[in-house]
Amino acid sequence: MRLSRYFLPVTKETPADAQIVSHKLMLRAGLVRQTAAGIYAWLPLGLKVLTRIEQIVREEQDRAGAIELLMPTIQSADLWRQSGRYDAYGPEMLRILDRHQREMLYGPTNEEMITLLFKDGARSYRDLPRTLYHIQWKFRDEVRPRFGVMRGREFLMKDAYSFDLDEEGLKQSYEAMFVAYLRTFARMGLQAVPVRAPTGPIGGNLSHEFHILADTGESALFYDAAIDEVTREELLSADASTITRLTDLYAMEEEEHAKVETCPVPAERLRTRRGIEVGHIFAFGTKYSASMGLSVQTKEGGQVHPHMGSYGIGVSRLMGAIIEASHDENGIIWPESVAPFQVGLINMRADDAGCAEAADRLYERLREAGIETLYDDRDERGGAKFATMDVIGLPWQLIVGPKGLEKGVVELKNRATGEREELSVESALARLVG
Amino acid sequence: MRLSRYFLPVTKETPADAQIVSHKLMLRAGLVRQTAAGIYAWLPLGLKVLTRIEQIVREEQDRAGAIELLMPTIQSADLWRQSGRYDAYGPEMLRILDRHQREMLYGPTNEEMITLLFKDGARSYRDLPRTLYHIQWKFRDEVRPRFGVMRGREFLMKDAYSFDLDEEGLKQSYEAMFVAYLRTFARMGLQAVPVRAPTGPIGGNLSHEFHILADTGESALFYDAAIDEVTREELLSADASTITRLTDLYAMEEEEHAKVETCPVPAERLRTRRGIEVGHIFAFGTKYSASMGLSVQTKEGGQVHPHMGSYGIGVSRLMGAIIEASHDENGIIWPESVAPFQVGLINMRADDAGCAEAADRLYERLREAGIETLYDDRDERGGAKFATMDVIGLPWQLIVGPKGLEKGVVELKNRATGEREELSVESALARLVG
Repeated sequence: MRLSRYFLPVTKETPADAQIVSHKLMLRAGLVRQTAAGIYAWLPLGLKVLTRIEQIVREEQDRAGAIELLMPTIQSADLWRQSGRYDAYGPEMLRILDRHQREMLYGPTNEEMITLLFKDGARSYRDLPRTLYHIQWKFRDEVRPRFGVMRGREFLMKDAYSFDLDEEGLKQSYEAMFVAYLRTFARMGLQAVPVRAPTGPIGGNLSHEFHILADTGESALFYDAAIDEVTREELLSADASTITRLTDLYAMEEEEHAKVETCPVPAERLRTRRGIEVGHIFAFGTKYSASMGLSVQTKEGGQVHPHMGSYGIGVSRLMGAIIEASHDENGIIWPESVAPFQVGLINMRADDAGCAEAADRLYERLREAGIETLYDDRDERGGAKFATMDVIGLPWQLIVGPKGLEKGVVELKNRATGEREELSVESALARLVG
Repeated sequence: MRLSRYFLPVTKETPADAQIVSHKLMLRAGLVRQTAAGIYAWLPLGLKVLTRIEQIVREEQDRAGAIELLMPTIQSADLWRQSGRYDAYGPEMLRILDRHQREMLYGPTNEEMITLLFKDGARSYRDLPRTLYHIQWKFRDEVRPRFGVMRGREFLMKDAYSFDLDEEGLKQSYEAMFVAYLRTFARMGLQAVPVRAPTGPIGGNLSHEFHILADTGESALFYDAAIDEVTREELLSADASTITRLTDLYAMEEEEHAKVETCPVPAERLRTRRGIEVGHIFAFGTKYSASMGLSVQTKEGGQVHPHMGSYGIGVSRLMGAIIEASHDENGIIWPESVAPFQVGLINMRADDAGCAEAADRLYERLREAGIETLYDDRDERGGAKFATMDVIGLPWQLIVGPKGLEKGVVELKNRATGEREELSVESALARLVG
């Protein structure tokens, strides 16, 4: 993409309510703009990152055998009355009257709807187990939206729902999602700590939260230092034994930790860090299948209410969490897996015909090789171009200038390490095309 | 995908309110389920088609140079007060009060929001021209939602907005979108008739609707038979001259046609068909840039309000339109470009080890070749399997049965023509892998 034809409103100033670094950087890098309290528009660069995060989430759901569908954002209040949650849910539910004065709501989650859809489609034990998921916008009417997309009101969530014949099956479905979560966050370059969670308004008996460690996290975590020793490779090849190993290690949110009489972790191994919750999984059994009248025929001819679980990931929140975990004083440092472009190509002198021709040619070759490239072909000062590339945080910067061209070289900069190297055009291309 | 692990609730009965064939077939084929009046959940097979339609729309927008972003579904009423449309828009706007009693709404369209976003990011003539688009859920609170996803309340729309320095630029942006629309519909196997449209509440001075011809369309069209002679190839390579040729040909909606004193088309060449509106483009000039205070600096140092256009495609409605245009008495016939799977593989005898082994092997080979295949490996009667494959309308059916295997052959059926052929496994694979 040529920057001269793109829409990338980078900015230096950020409003006073942008307190945390990810919020500031998302505004400065032109990723999002707030359009109402806690509601954001995703500008082109931000949408690219969001789409990549979403795609990693999707691939890991598919890999775990979950099946994608898409439920609507607007639901009827009657649906929620069937489970008893319409009255129980507080003012965070955005309640709506349509033109016929029917009570509707903007879905904050979808247990009721998926239960009815599954009831419509499943008859017998042959139709189980199944895990269904969707990636859809949700609305929670936070009293005080803050921290940019981290605690927005309209947000993108992946929510999956599993249906099993019995508790043992539910345990397996729960573990498959647990593995998918470990892989999902590891692929984004994040260290996620699974924390045994008390079950909230969704109800149930087994639940874990996944927290990304970051100083600006809203939760205080207490955990065994051994968790920090689990490697990315172990997480990417996680299986049931990885879960056992991880969940055997102590990890608690402050509130729960305070209730523990004797902490099992020796003081020198107890870590205290702040965490951002990016995932939450629940095994809640028959709560919704029973209340919504979902039952299926067993092999023996009886009827059972399927045992269910639900599994959420905050897709839009993850963008904030990744930035909290990966930035420096100059801007964002995107992990390659979610970077909006892999390479930022800078022509230092757009007014120099030789530079322009060399940069144009490099751009063509990168495109031909399938490397997503943002090409700063604008007639601007080099310093401004560097600052823009640093703040938007593409993994590689490829810099074409008149002095280098005289020597037959271009400069390749690694955004994460800051390392710069002079290379011939061919070597630079070989490095990037890999 | 193995059907034994998928979620595909096909059904024979459809509710009485499903009057038109696309609505009936979308329910029968397990593509969608209604979850509230005019609001649908997209089941796995339906989501796959929706995603393919969306992707064709996206590719043609990108090809035309439009830049994708994503605006939220919920907007503030204040935004719409700035253009004066909040009070002008009727009861089709879903109006919402949040917990702080602030007036919000579920966006039916995005002219106001995009104008403010562009105002935030564009300063001078260098930032123009630009066309920005998004593909997002909209809500229009239809008084009587009907015809399934064709006139639903929550629907997926692509809306693009162009910003130009002057009228001549706007004309070029309008033409680029016109070409994109011709290509988009042609790629989906549809014949779209562009009809000069009177401008509605969005305002403006130049507008075309794109109608898919189908007996169940809501609009009656009168047009020159020469439009039917434009070939798919011409549409796929459309340029400004194609537009001139098409728009020079007479095409009117009934209401406008009735106002014409002397129809320029001789009676023998005047066609009357019903149409489904799937796209609508407007050039409206400075209506929003002026009312929302968007101006940019010109090359000469002055300030101008950009000339704008907006360009919509009903993405979810297109699914209904495609089915209206392409089905038979047994079910849907998907054009290859939007088919949820390319091949339906049927094992006629899941209880026969030889059949199962042969079908499993075919499935693996198709997967390895990257052919998306729905594999009916269930223990069901052959007749039921044929009926399911016919109703869901995949382009090809590959049938493995014990008699054929004895002769070393499988059967390949073309869903559109109904043609069946006995072929060796290798020949069948070669045919499908192409």
